[in-house]
Amino acid sequence: MLQTGFIRNCWYVIAWDHEIPTDGLFTRTVLCEPIVVFRSGTGFAALEDRCCHRAAPLSKGSKEGDALRCGYHGLKFNAQGRCVEIPGQDHVPSNACVRSYPVALKNKWVFVWMGDPAKADLTLLPDNFSCDSPDWQNIPGYLHYDTNQLLICDNLLDFSHLSYVHAATLGGSTAIAQSKPRIERIAGPGPQGIRVSRHVPDVPSPPFYQRFKSYTTNIDRWFIYDFLVPGTLIMKSGGKPVGGDPNDFSDAVQLHSCQTVTPETEHSTHYFFQQSHPTGSGDASVTQKIYDMLVLAFNEDRDMITAQSQVLERDPSRGFVPISHDAALNQFRQLVRRLVEAETLA
Amino acid sequence: MLQTGFIRNCWYVIAWDHEIPTDGLFTRTVLCEPIVVFRSGTGFAALEDRCCHRAAPLSKGSKEGDALRCGYHGLKFNAQGRCVEIPGQDHVPSNACVRSYPVALKNKWVFVWMGDPAKADLTLLPDNFSCDSPDWQNIPGYLHYDTNQLLICDNLLDFSHLSYVHAATLGGSTAIAQSKPRIERIAGPGPQGIRVSRHVPDVPSPPFYQRFKSYTTNIDRWFIYDFLVPGTLIMKSGGKPVGGDPNDFSDAVQLHSCQTVTPETEHSTHYFFQQSHPTGSGDASVTQKIYDMLVLAFNEDRDMITAQSQVLERDPSRGFVPISHDAALNQFRQLVRRLVEAETLA
Amino acid sequence: MLQTGFIRNCWYVIAWDHEIPTDGLFTRTVLCEPIVVFRSGTGFAALEDRCCHRAAPLSKGSKEGDALRCGYHGLKFNAQGRCVEIPGQDHVPSNACVRSYPVALKNKWVFVWMGDPAKADLTLLPDNFSCDSPDWQNIPGYLHYDTNQLLICDNLLDFSHLSYVHAATLGGSTAIAQSKPRIERIAGPGPQGIRVSRHVPDVPSPPFYQRFKSYTTNIDRWFIYDFLVPGTLIMKSGGKPVGGDPNDFSDAVQLHSCQTVTPETEHSTHYFFQQSHPTGSGDASVTQKIYDMLVLAFNEDRDMITAQSQVLERDPSRGFVPISHDAALNQFRQLVRRLVEAETLA
Repeated sequence: MLQTGFIRNCWYVIAWDHEIPTDGLFTRTVLCEPIVVFRSGTGFAALEDRCCHRAAPLSKGSKEGDALRCGYHGLKFNAQGRCVEIPGQDHVPSNACVRSYPVALKNKWVFVWMGDPAKADLTLLPDNFSCDSPDWQNIPGYLHYDTNQLLICDNLLDFSHLSYVHAATLGGSTAIAQSKPRIERIAGPGPQGIRVSRHVPDVPSPPFYQRFKSYTTNIDRWFIYDFLVPGTLIMKSGGKPVGGDPNDFSDAVQLHSCQTVTPETEHSTHYFFQQSHPTGSGDASVTQKIYDMLVLAFNEDRDMITAQSQVLERDPSRGFVPISHDAALNQFRQLVRRLVEAETLA
Repeated sequence: MLQTGFIRNCWYVIAWDHEIPTDGLFTRTVLCEPIVVFRSGTGFAALEDRCCHRAAPLSKGSKEGDALRCGYHGLKFNAQGRCVEIPGQDHVPSNACVRSYPVALKNKWVFVWMGDPAKADLTLLPDNFSCDSPDWQNIPGYLHYDTNQLLICDNLLDFSHLSYVHAATLGGSTAIAQSKPRIERIAGPGPQGIRVSRHVPDVPSPPFYQRFKSYTTNIDRWFIYDFLVPGTLIMKSGGKPVGGDPNDFSDAVQLHSCQTVTPETEHSTHYFFQQSHPTGSGDASVTQKIYDMLVLAFNEDRDMITAQSQVLERDPSRGFVPISHDAALNQFRQLVRRLVEAETLA
Repeated sequence: MLQTGFIRNCWYVIAWDHEIPTDGLFTRTVLCEPIVVFRSGTGFAALEDRCCHRAAPLSKGSKEGDALRCGYHGLKFNAQGRCVEIPGQDHVPSNACVRSYPVALKNKWVFVWMGDPAKADLTLLPDNFSCDSPDWQNIPGYLHYDTNQLLICDNLLDFSHLSYVHAATLGGSTAIAQSKPRIERIAGPGPQGIRVSRHVPDVPSPPFYQRFKSYTTNIDRWFIYDFLVPGTLIMKSGGKPVGGDPNDFSDAVQLHSCQTVTPETEHSTHYFFQQSHPTGSGDASVTQKIYDMLVLAFNEDRDMITAQSQVLERDPSRGFVPISHDAALNQFRQLVRRLVEAETLA
C-alpha cells in the first residue's frame, strides 16, 4: 500500500500564497526535500533548504532584497541558488551553489516542479479557478497528515465513506454508499486523472447543507469531480429539492471545491483545501460555517486514515479484499504507478 | 533477556469484564495482534482489529446488535468474523472475513486464546476465584508496562525485592530478602508453573498491613503462591503476631491476590491485578486503602523494571551474575522456553 | 560529518562538583556508557550504572557510607566496584563486580577517564583555573545537545558565526566574520589542540559588553583561546576603546571562559560552560547578567546546530563546499581522527 516512488515531473502545491511572508523565509518539505521559499522580484524563489557550506538550513537565515543570507556563517545566495558572497574571503568558488526549483503561482496556490527543470510545463497546472475568483467565496485550509499521500487519494476517490466517516457532518445518509458512481479516465493535454460522477437521489439534506439552506423535503445530491495527478481534486457538488424542474437551480446548493495533497515524505503529507460557495449565496457567516464544517469533517478523515495507516505499517505485505467501490482508486493508483515507471525508465 | 517467542496455545487476559462496554467496541493488542472485543449474544466476540477490505481498524466502527460495522466503508461482520454486508454491492465474496479468537470469561477476567482455536482448552484457565467471590473484596487494577513481560515475571518470582523496592510500602524489613523460599514445580493438569512458599518470622509489620491492622509486636509473615504460564500469580499471603497459637488466625491479616501479565508486544505488557481481603475484615475504606497502596507499590516495580529494561536494551547480549534468589525465575523461564519450543516443533 | 569513534584515553567532564549530592547518587552517560557517581572517602567513585546481577541501574539504589546498594535486590558495591554483600546468601562470587572509572576533580569540574585505567594521566587535565579562583567570578552552566559533539566543536572553532548567529547578543558586527584569525597547533605535553587568536579592530561594542560597560566609542576586540582534545575551550577575550594606549587595560572588558563538551552518545552531547569576569569588576548583578546573556547566546547556537544536525542526518554522505574560515575546525577534526586511529591501532 505504500508508495514505491513519486511522480517527479509535475507540479506540487508547496504553500498557499498568503503563507509566504513579504520579508521573510518560508520552509516546507516536498518529496523528502526541504525547500525554502521567498519572494524575489515579482515572483518567488525556491531553493534547497541546505547551505552548501556545512548544511545549515537556509530557512534559519534572512531575506536580503531578492537574495537570502545563511544565518550560520553568512553566505549569500541569489534567487537562482548561486552563492554571491562569502564573508571573510574574496573569491566565491563556482561550486558554491544550491539547487533551485521552478516555481509557479496560480490562483493562490504556489507550485514547485520537483523533476527536471527543463521539463517544467505550465499547461500541467490544474484549473483551480475557485481558489481566487470574484464569483466564489472560501477560506483556504491546510492540514498535515502523518500518512502516505495515496491513502488520502484513496479516500477522495471513494465517497462511499461519506455515509460512515461523515455520518454527522458531510454525509447524513447511507444512500451515498449505496449509489454507483460513473468512472472515466481523463487523458491529456493537461494533467491526467480520473473523473468521478455520482448522483444520489432523494436523500435527506446533510447536516452540512442545513448550515446554509433549510430544506424541509429530501433532496437530490451530486458530486462531479476530476481527480488529477499528482493528487488534486476539482469538484462541483450540490443538491436541490426532489421533484423540481431538472433545469431550475434557483433553490439548489451549488459548491466548488479544490483540494490537493503533496507528499512531504513517504509517511507524511500536506493537504491544501477549500470549499467555495457562490458569491452572494448565504449570509455573511456562511463562508466561515462551511470552513468550520469542512475542518471538522477532514479531521474525521484524518483520524480514520491515520489509524488505517498505523494498521498497514504493522504488516505492509498483507493483501486486501477488493470491493466494487475501489474502482476509481485502483485506476488512479495504476495511473500513478505507470507514470512513476515511465520516469524511472526515461 | 528478551523473549524469543510467545506461548500461543494458552489463555491470555485481554481485559477486565467491566472494560468491555455494553454497546460499543473495545480494542487491545495481545502478542502483537490488535484485537477488537465486543459483547455478542450472551458472551463476547473477539476479532482481528483490521478490516479485510483496506485495513481500517474495526474498533473505529460501531456495534450493530451482535455484529460490528466498519467505520470507513461500512462492511459488516458477525461475531465469527464473516462479512455479512458490503454497502453498494449485492454479493459478499467468501474471502471477506477477519480472524476471530476463542474468548472465555472467568471471574471477571476476559481471556482470549491466541493459538490454534481447535486446541482452546477451558481446563487451562487459572483459578482466579477471589476476583469474583462474595467472600473476598477488592478493586480491580490495570497497569501498562513498556517492557517485555518476562522481566515482570522475574520480579513476581523473587520477592526478595520487597526489602528494597518496596521498603516503604509492601516490604518494611530486609528479613524478606534474607529468608529462603521453597520452590516447587507445578505440573498439569491445569496450567503448569512454579510454586513459591516463603515464611518470614518475627519481623515488623509492613506499612501496608498497618493500614488496616495495628500490630504493636513483630509478626510472622507468609507468601504462598502459584506462578502459572503464561504469567499468572495466584497468592495467599498474610501475617500474624509472633508467639501465638500456630492454628489461631483470629488476629491475622489474610489476603488473596490474583495478578496476570499479558504481552502486548515484545517490548510492552499489560498487567492486571487485584489484592483481596476477606469480606467483613477491616472498615469500609480498607478495600480502597489496599488498592491505593498496591498501585503505589506496583508503580515502584514499574519504575525499577522499566529502568532495568532500558539498561538491557543497550546491550541485550551481556550476561548476568546469578544469585541464589534467581532459582524460581530461572525455572519459570526454562518452562516458558520449553513450551515455546514444543509449539515451534509441533 | 558524524564521528566514527571517540578518543577514549582522555579525561571527560561528567559533572560540575555541585551536581554530585552529599548523600545520594548521580548518573550521567558518557561515550554511550551510563555512569553512577558518588562521594566516597575524600573523593569520588564512578561505577558502571548497571548491576552485574540483572542489569538494574545502580543509580536507582542508595549510598551507604562509602559504598552503594542496588535498589532492586540489594547487592552492595564498594567504590572499586567489588560486590561486598548479596542478601540471602553467604558467599559473594569473585565475578560479582562492576566496572569502575578513574575520577579526578579539578577546579569544580569532575572528570572521568574513559580509556585504559592504567593510562589515566593527570597531566592531561586542562587548566580550567577560572572555574574556581578567588580572582574570577562566574555562574556555572550546563546545556544538553541532541547532536554529535563535533558539530559543537566546529562552532567553537569558528567565531565568524558570532556575526550572524549572535548578531543581537555576543556579536554585534559583521567585522568579526571579516577578520582573519591566526591558527596554531598546540602539541603536548598536556592536552593537544588548536590555538585561535582573533583581533577585531574598531567595531561597535556588542550588546553583551554594554551590559556592564557603557562605551560611547567603537572598541577593539580580541578572542584568544586554546581548543583542546577532547573538546575544551579555554579563552581570554575582551575589548577596549579604540585609539588608547595598547598597554593600558584600565577601561577594558577582560573575560575568561572555560567550556567543554562531553559526548553522551554519537547523537547527543553535554555542554559545560562558564564565562568569568575579574572579581571586583562590575556591580553586584554583573555575574548574573553575563550568565543570562551567555545562556541566551548558547541557546542560539544550539538552535542552529540542532537544525544543522537534522539536515545532515537526512543524508550524511553529501559533501561540503569548504571556505577559508574552516581552517581551525578542519585541523581539530584531523587531530581527533588521528588520535582515534592511534588508539584503534594500539
